[in-house]
Amino acid sequence: MSTVIYPGSFDPCTNGHLDIIRRASKIFEKVIVAVLCNSSKAPLFSAEERVQFIKDAAKDLPNVEITSFSGLLVDFAKKNNAKIVIKGLRAVSDFEYEFQMALTNHNLCRECETIFIPASAEYMFLSSSIVKEIASYDGDLTGLVPPDLVPVLRHRFGFC
Amino acid sequence: MSTVIYPGSFDPCTNGHLDIIRRASKIFEKVIVAVLCNSSKAPLFSAEERVQFIKDAAKDLPNVEITSFSGLLVDFAKKNNAKIVIKGLRAVSDFEYEFQMALTNHNLCRECETIFIPASAEYMFLSSSIVKEIASYDGDLTGLVPPDLVPVLRHRFGFC
Amino acid sequence: MSTVIYPGSFDPCTNGHLDIIRRASKIFEKVIVAVLCNSSKAPLFSAEERVQFIKDAAKDLPNVEITSFSGLLVDFAKKNNAKIVIKGLRAVSDFEYEFQMALTNHNLCRECETIFIPASAEYMFLSSSIVKEIASYDGDLTGLVPPDLVPVLRHRFGFC
Amino acid sequence: MSTVIYPGSFDPCTNGHLDIIRRASKIFEKVIVAVLCNSSKAPLFSAEERVQFIKDAAKDLPNVEITSFSGLLVDFAKKNNAKIVIKGLRAVSDFEYEFQMALTNHNLCRECETIFIPASAEYMFLSSSIVKEIASYDGDLTGLVPPDLVPVLRHRFGFC
Amino acid sequence: MSTVIYPGSFDPCTNGHLDIIRRASKIFEKVIVAVLCNSSKAPLFSAEERVQFIKDAAKDLPNVEITSFSGLLVDFAKKNNAKIVIKGLRAVSDFEYEFQMALTNHNLCRECETIFIPASAEYMFLSSSIVKEIASYDGDLTGLVPPDLVPVLRHRFGFC
Amino acid sequence: MSTVIYPGSFDPCTNGHLDIIRRASKIFEKVIVAVLCNSSKAPLFSAEERVQFIKDAAKDLPNVEITSFSGLLVDFAKKNNAKIVIKGLRAVSDFEYEFQMALTNHNLCRECETIFIPASAEYMFLSSSIVKEIASYDGDLTGLVPPDLVPVLRHRFGFC
Repeated sequence: MSTVIYPGSFDPCTNGHLDIIRRASKIFEKVIVAVLCNSSKAPLFSAEERVQFIKDAAKDLPNVEITSFSGLLVDFAKKNNAKIVIKGLRAVSDFEYEFQMALTNHNLCRECETIFIPASAEYMFLSSSIVKEIASYDGDLTGLVPPDLVPVLRHRFGFC
Repeated sequence: MSTVIYPGSFDPCTNGHLDIIRRASKIFEKVIVAVLCNSSKAPLFSAEERVQFIKDAAKDLPNVEITSFSGLLVDFAKKNNAKIVIKGLRAVSDFEYEFQMALTNHNLCRECETIFIPASAEYMFLSSSIVKEIASYDGDLTGLVPPDLVPVLRHRFGFC
Repeated sequence: MSTVIYPGSFDPCTNGHLDIIRRASKIFEKVIVAVLCNSSKAPLFSAEERVQFIKDAAKDLPNVEITSFSGLLVDFAKKNNAKIVIKGLRAVSDFEYEFQMALTNHNLCRECETIFIPASAEYMFLSSSIVKEIASYDGDLTGLVPPDLVPVLRHRFGFC
Repeated sequence: MSTVIYPGSFDPCTNGHLDIIRRASKIFEKVIVAVLCNSSKAPLFSAEERVQFIKDAAKDLPNVEITSFSGLLVDFAKKNNAKIVIKGLRAVSDFEYEFQMALTNHNLCRECETIFIPASAEYMFLSSSIVKEIASYDGDLTGLVPPDLVPVLRHRFGFC
Repeated sequence: MSTVIYPGSFDPCTNGHLDIIRRASKIFEKVIVAVLCNSSKAPLFSAEERVQFIKDAAKDLPNVEITSFSGLLVDFAKKNNAKIVIKGLRAVSDFEYEFQMALTNHNLCRECETIFIPASAEYMFLSSSIVKEIASYDGDLTGLVPPDLVPVLRHRFGFC
Repeated sequence: MSTVIYPGSFDPCTNGHLDIIRRASKIFEKVIVAVLCNSSKAPLFSAEERVQFIKDAAKDLPNVEITSFSGLLVDFAKKNNAKIVIKGLRAVSDFEYEFQMALTNHNLCRECETIFIPASAEYMFLSSSIVKEIASYDGDLTGLVPPDLVPVLRHRFGFC
């Protein structure tokens, strides 16, 4: 009954994203991770790759489904009979942007609610951008992304 | 199954609090509103009064239970077999304090999760303190608190 | 005598911008809305179009003049014998950027003062970017921009 | 015609407050500085003293009037046929509190508008509390308050 | 040569404070921890107790000296021939207050510099107030304060 | 012994950067200014030019060394036997980004510490971007950059 959508670019997913997915899967009956594929910025990984990375990392969580979407989040939510969107919250800058999106989505669809899950302390300052910057100089990614992603990222940046 | 606790001082409850209660009652199976009665500050209303105000205002919501508690929130949560705490989020200052409390509670009880529900735009800047300040000068409380509370507040501040 | 300048990209103007214009027109004798046409980002609408949209939406306000400018705001202000700049303030991130610009302009021209008008609660999280993102997926723009702009935006994004 | 109210505790006024008064007196036709005398906290100086300090420091500004008030600001504004409230803005924490008050006052009186004047860079972090803390240890107050106030503050804290 | 002062109330010291002390002792030649004893608020522990707690917890750090002071920090700094003040930084609200104090101290003594050391992720949301609140309900203090302080706090709150 | 690294883009250096360099040179034995040359954004000035500008402006500071680097900051720090990174802190948005970088670097190298030096009040809102924007319209750069840089910037933007 209580299905939630966890939307994002996940380019790529970090251990912070997976922590949110894991915790959400204990709170809600079903979690749909929705990989946004119409971002204007050119992503590092294709939507298919990004979906697969999360599928691999979350394969032990039976009530988590991973898919991609394009268009407005509220339209995706309606199609999936889900009214609740979850977002992780890290720093204050997150907060303002996410508030703006939550109110915008609520405006577009009165039944759509967004709720926020605070990042765990150890992931408070982790982001996909930081991961990509470190990877681009072949820095140590241990603990930042799922172990299987480390060689994938090194390869993508030409280090093996 | 998914029982959540909504703790607070609620001295008194505002329409912003009631908006959070109403929206939470649609998302979760059971909402326990927990009126904190061990605040160090002397409250304007007794815990019993504060519980009753919310009971009156939320009487049409069958899955909402209102009670008071003292002591640590995590102990109250354990006693009620609830692991999820909800908090409304308004401005940035809220955000930091609530983050601190969420991490502290998570530290005290690893299973305890806090999730945040953003205030609706019209209640973004409403608080119990503002209500009390306006009431103390017999200002207009329409739209800020449940209608039944208006004469109670006026009386408490000696205006009738 | 008290002429103020309200500068911005207005690409396109939103109901939040028009709310600021309307309120400023009641406070000050003359309001010059100044559409910036030298932004480095490629705008969705030309400066002429952006000026015209505001002219249409504010045509009932006799003390509001709409024009475009390029170059430094302080130079435009001097040319128009105006020393007061007004800016709308929404969230905290606005605040810091606008503070920086206000101090910079004051540095460039000691007589130039910037004053801030807080967004109304219902427009606190509305921006031109959000409008464009919603429009790009043919989402509902009701209440976000002047009614006449809705078909214009739909057309620009290829939906009619 | 354009009369503005500048409310505050001014316990005591600082050079930051006087900077706002001076700048506002150039923008608006009349500035009413309104010293709040119903603050719940015990002030260091009486309302009469606080009014007099500002009168002394602003005596060269003919369009500035200093008075005290108690009760709701919107009631004071109505009595004085003034619809515009000005507030200085320093740091982010100011911003949120002042936003809350601006929206609350607008709610109590639809015609009441609050506009913000950013603190000058050199007064960005000056406050009455800081002044009182420094004065309580007989620290150097030069540049923080009007020169005439320095011996008054020293005397109040028992240093002469 | 590079002596720094780390001022604070430390009522009581937390593991967050000790983390800052430990890290500062590796960066600077001498660290003077300065326990403020003229705070207006009644402390839970006397200045002597607070000094002793830090002495016990930092006894393995030879270049750390713990003492108490009253009055203005800049006067204490001058007396100790130290020009550098260090402060831990946690959340945004810290940041603004500490900035204000840093600029105020720099104003009072041009040679006085304040530098900030960011809290470690695990202590980002830990404070003396939180510790006291948890202790007042006999909550678990493990990991929040030095082990020796746990029974002291329990005793102070009447739990043994 | 206590060598610190001050990394940045410095495109170009501002008087705010030089203020940090000057103050840091009084606190630490050696300051290595490290001009980042692998930024993804196309810089206005080459790394060589940026290094030279700082060399010219800081030539009276014998314990300051200016160099460029690419790659991860922690790798550069290791190569230079430096464990301490300094960063200037201006507004709140700085704060969050810098915190993220500090924690990330600490994660990549446990011995690496970042400490923050608050901007002086007069440079609180100065940045390289603001300088470039003003220069692009031939605005007055006095007091924002070292005097020698003014004609260089004017020339780069085609004004002489």
